[in-house]
Amino acid sequence: MNQSDIKKLGPIQSLVQGELESLETRLQEILDSDVPLIENICTYLNDRPGKRIRPTILFLTARSAGSPEHDTVTAGLAVELVHTATLVHDDIIDDHLVRRGKPTVYARWGSDAATLIGDYLYSMAFSCLAEARMFDVMDILARVTHDMSVGELMQLQLRRTLDLSEDHYMDMIYKKTAALFSASCECGALLGGEQNGHRNLYSRFGKNMGLAFQIVDDLFDYVAADRDLGKPTASDFSDGRVTLPFITAFRNAPEPARKRVSDLFTVSFDKKKHWGEVVSFVQDYGGVEYSLRKAKDFAEQAKGHLMDVSSSPERDALFVASDYVVERVHAFCK
Amino acid sequence: MNQSDIKKLGPIQSLVQGELESLETRLQEILDSDVPLIENICTYLNDRPGKRIRPTILFLTARSAGSPEHDTVTAGLAVELVHTATLVHDDIIDDHLVRRGKPTVYARWGSDAATLIGDYLYSMAFSCLAEARMFDVMDILARVTHDMSVGELMQLQLRRTLDLSEDHYMDMIYKKTAALFSASCECGALLGGEQNGHRNLYSRFGKNMGLAFQIVDDLFDYVAADRDLGKPTASDFSDGRVTLPFITAFRNAPEPARKRVSDLFTVSFDKKKHWGEVVSFVQDYGGVEYSLRKAKDFAEQAKGHLMDVSSSPERDALFVASDYVVERVHAFCK
Repeated sequence: MNQSDIKKLGPIQSLVQGELESLETRLQEILDSDVPLIENICTYLNDRPGKRIRPTILFLTARSAGSPEHDTVTAGLAVELVHTATLVHDDIIDDHLVRRGKPTVYARWGSDAATLIGDYLYSMAFSCLAEARMFDVMDILARVTHDMSVGELMQLQLRRTLDLSEDHYMDMIYKKTAALFSASCECGALLGGEQNGHRNLYSRFGKNMGLAFQIVDDLFDYVAADRDLGKPTASDFSDGRVTLPFITAFRNAPEPARKRVSDLFTVSFDKKKHWGEVVSFVQDYGGVEYSLRKAKDFAEQAKGHLMDVSSSPERDALFVASDYVVERVHAFCK
Repeated sequence: MNQSDIKKLGPIQSLVQGELESLETRLQEILDSDVPLIENICTYLNDRPGKRIRPTILFLTARSAGSPEHDTVTAGLAVELVHTATLVHDDIIDDHLVRRGKPTVYARWGSDAATLIGDYLYSMAFSCLAEARMFDVMDILARVTHDMSVGELMQLQLRRTLDLSEDHYMDMIYKKTAALFSASCECGALLGGEQNGHRNLYSRFGKNMGLAFQIVDDLFDYVAADRDLGKPTASDFSDGRVTLPFITAFRNAPEPARKRVSDLFTVSFDKKKHWGEVVSFVQDYGGVEYSLRKAKDFAEQAKGHLMDVSSSPERDALFVASDYVVERVHAFCK
């Protein structure tokens, strides 16, 4: 987590500091193993943790929705484990060697160990929930992990589809990313004792926040410098992943410019030689501007869903969290 | 399935033919997808199905244990999906290009698609159970998929460990294989309405049958010809997997013979040049004989656990199934 993240997330996360601390303790405990390979990889993963955004919104939602008597920490743990499992498998698929500024599990231990550790983390999420007999949460997470795998397979299938439609892109990022944000909020609302009507509002908040989050993630490639991001820029494009900034520019550009980037994409793409040109194309034809506006729209829609739930510091923190996922783009702008 | 399998399994499976037919119909339905990549791979997987041994013992157990009012087919479906997911991921890890006589998903679509389809099948298993609100079955399967991932990671870690102990091997094959047999029987007993005491007996039956099954699987490398098995022989050894036949021979052999195979193993192993020598080593030093005896012992122990449950055609079919997993070795003997 960089300084800018801490500054923004700090006040939000301080409201659920107890839960987040328990989460860290529990993660340390359950990832302890007497199989040295598992122990080594899990310690490595825990040594540079992510921002815990998904558990944070789960905990905030639970408090916003009511007075959670249930075990929100186990649910947060499961959500974070599913997220980590996805990252580990994604890094294999996308051939990512660096994440959070250090080598990925895939880069360090190879694809075999990364495949199996992903499976281990997924199954750990479900066995923790089963042990706690949190079957309703299990129900939500079973469906969402299924959605996520469909989203990932769609992404694989749609690689190198230059004329990908915005609708297809939205469907794909909903499944692969926003569905877990939505599920985190739904679990939180459920454990907070919310009735079905308001559970849907929280779930929609999560969905829209998740869409904003992924669009901003996809923007990083076109606005960030390598040193800030913890992973190399141009990686999406090099992998053949077509994202909203590119989709927009490709839709807006005149034929000669479209032809030129198509050639770059279909012939061998050389990052050093061609990346600057692709970035200019995306910026010149409104890809960055449009995507940022879309992300802001989704963040606003997210907040809109929570206007009718009771006001509380936790609900307001969810508003800040929704703004944060868009604002973090500025921290990375060149 | 070859002719010998059909002959042996036919009478056993005819007792639960209704359930097995529903299983096939349900598998076709749920693996239908509007994402072409998913549709193609799932159709391919379904075109040459396995023997459905795990659902078969689940269905037989449910009938043997009582009068199943619950939805055993959904449980059988989940068990088969978990099993298939494991095979798809295993083929990546073991670099297996052929299974059931045709290219693996990994060989045909690559490791990226295979990784994601494995995740898709795992999550499908859990979402089917969640939809049917079969939370007790979900509980059992969550634990067992976790055990299985630990077993796979142990196997990866213990690759090329020539002096692997028999205890370590047994622990590993329990987790990676026998745990799912055990869970299939436990789910069957649960859905058949059995009380806890007898559930344990069925679960132990499954465990011992599963151990026998894996030992026989590991024997194939040392007794089968390529044409019968649907996958190349010597694959375990080439992958660095040390199994019971080898462990036994390595324990029994005098130092010069141990030194010779160690050299083969640690220097570059050339299947054409060296495989015959390794097979002779294993056979000469009692690896085949001992492993077969062990497999028979486990099959007998399996049956022993069911001596005290009420006699029925289904219980007797479980006895035959337990013998079958050992007897199938003869169909492949050179």
